Amino acid sequence: MSSGTGGRTATYEMVLTHIEQGLTSGALRPGDRLPAERELAGTLGASRTAVREALRVLQAQGVIRSQVGTGDGSGTVIVPAPARALGRVLQLHLAVDSFPVDDVTEARVMLERFSAGLAASRRTANDLLVMTAELDAMDADLDPEAFSDADIAFHVLIAGSAGNRLVNELTVAIRESVRGVLLDAMHERVDWPSLRERLRGEHRAIHAALLAGDGGRAADLMEEHIRAFHGVLPPAGPR
Amino acid sequence: MSSGTGGRTATYEMVLTHIEQGLTSGALRPGDRLPAERELAGTLGASRTAVREALRVLQAQGVIRSQVGTGDGSGTVIVPAPARALGRVLQLHLAVDSFPVDDVTEARVMLERFSAGLAASRRTANDLLVMTAELDAMDADLDPEAFSDADIAFHVLIAGSAGNRLVNELTVAIRESVRGVLLDAMHERVDWPSLRERLRGEHRAIHAALLAGDGGRAADLMEEHIRAFHGVLPPAGPR
Repeated sequence: MSSGTGGRTATYEMVLTHIEQGLTSGALRPGDRLPAERELAGTLGASRTAVREALRVLQAQGVIRSQVGTGDGSGTVIVPAPARALGRVLQLHLAVDSFPVDDVTEARVMLERFSAGLAASRRTANDLLVMTAELDAMDADLDPEAFSDADIAFHVLIAGSAGNRLVNELTVAIRESVRGVLLDAMHERVDWPSLRERLRGEHRAIHAALLAGDGGRAADLMEEHIRAFHGVLPPAGPR
Repeated sequence: MSSGTGGRTATYEMVLTHIEQGLTSGALRPGDRLPAERELAGTLGASRTAVREALRVLQAQGVIRSQVGTGDGSGTVIVPAPARALGRVLQLHLAVDSFPVDDVTEARVMLERFSAGLAASRRTANDLLVMTAELDAMDADLDPEAFSDADIAFHVLIAGSAGNRLVNELTVAIRESVRGVLLDAMHERVDWPSLRERLRGEHRAIHAALLAGDGGRAADLMEEHIRAFHGVLPPAGPR
């Protein structure tokens, strides 16, 4: 028996579905302004509270933005760019263990192979320089936390260089969502310095393949790098 | 100047962030029950309205479920399986044009190559039978709408046979999000029957590769199939 936190679930869901349908049908486009809360409530026969709750949901998803004031830009507007909103939701789903860890690893391999392969032909000279700076930073005597941050930055730079915003956002969300698991694995290793040294070498090899423009090799090295690291993780429990 | 639809944005965001942090840190796990609204409001120094709005957002994302009553299963519970919640959010983001169409096509190729390749070794005899039924249904004299529904079902069956729930959910969301665009392309073709015939042939070839267990061939055929269809789409505008 699934219901709401109060008695208004049906109304709030109805308002949400109404706006979602407008978006998916194309009747509502980025830049369009939604009617005022009072007007929406009247049109849909819903309470203003239900309307407000539906708008909160869309706002948290990065689909609308509300601006105060009475000027041209005021009111509730459909926004084109979700920034990190999609990633935030994906991370949350990964956090509640909705997906088996093996599925997440396979998805990482798929996404990062794709990015490494494309980045080899699309990366700019500046991309390579920024990656080098990140690799140099990782050469310091870093603890797992600091190393992990620089590691994420390096992988995210590659995804960005591939130039596909959708794949990029999915990659960032998944990479960040496994940060905690990977950190635990780093901490559990008594020989952290030697693991760190291996990871550095793998990163340098991927960077060299990107510099050489060899997408096939960059993708293969990326896959080995991800799988090798997941090899040091504690084995998954029974599925 | 981005703000809320009322004056409570900061409070509602604060409650949401608090619960999200509990989830990502692992302090809150699937099956755990959240404190009552009144208690949460007191602990966090927030209004009950703000708490309720934050809970609505999490509920719409499929992360919590609220159950009425006073028994063991009542209250607000963290749920493990988001079902289609992640896909729903992704579809919404794709609907508001957040991502360039070329990015979406590339992502489809990546996801469906992955699924076709894995499905060739993981598909069961029953999977193949259900796919055959779908292909047979597409042999009828279908209009674009009916054909499109069966087409989606066929592609989703392949993603399901690959056995990766995360990739599956991403595939379904992206495939459904481009349904409208693909339908428009079908309608614009005066020679719909010949396009339909070509698509049928491509589906049969993919199915044959899955039957033969040839993952490499299934992936290549899937990529050609998707790219060929996007070739009949109107060219994208300047990026």
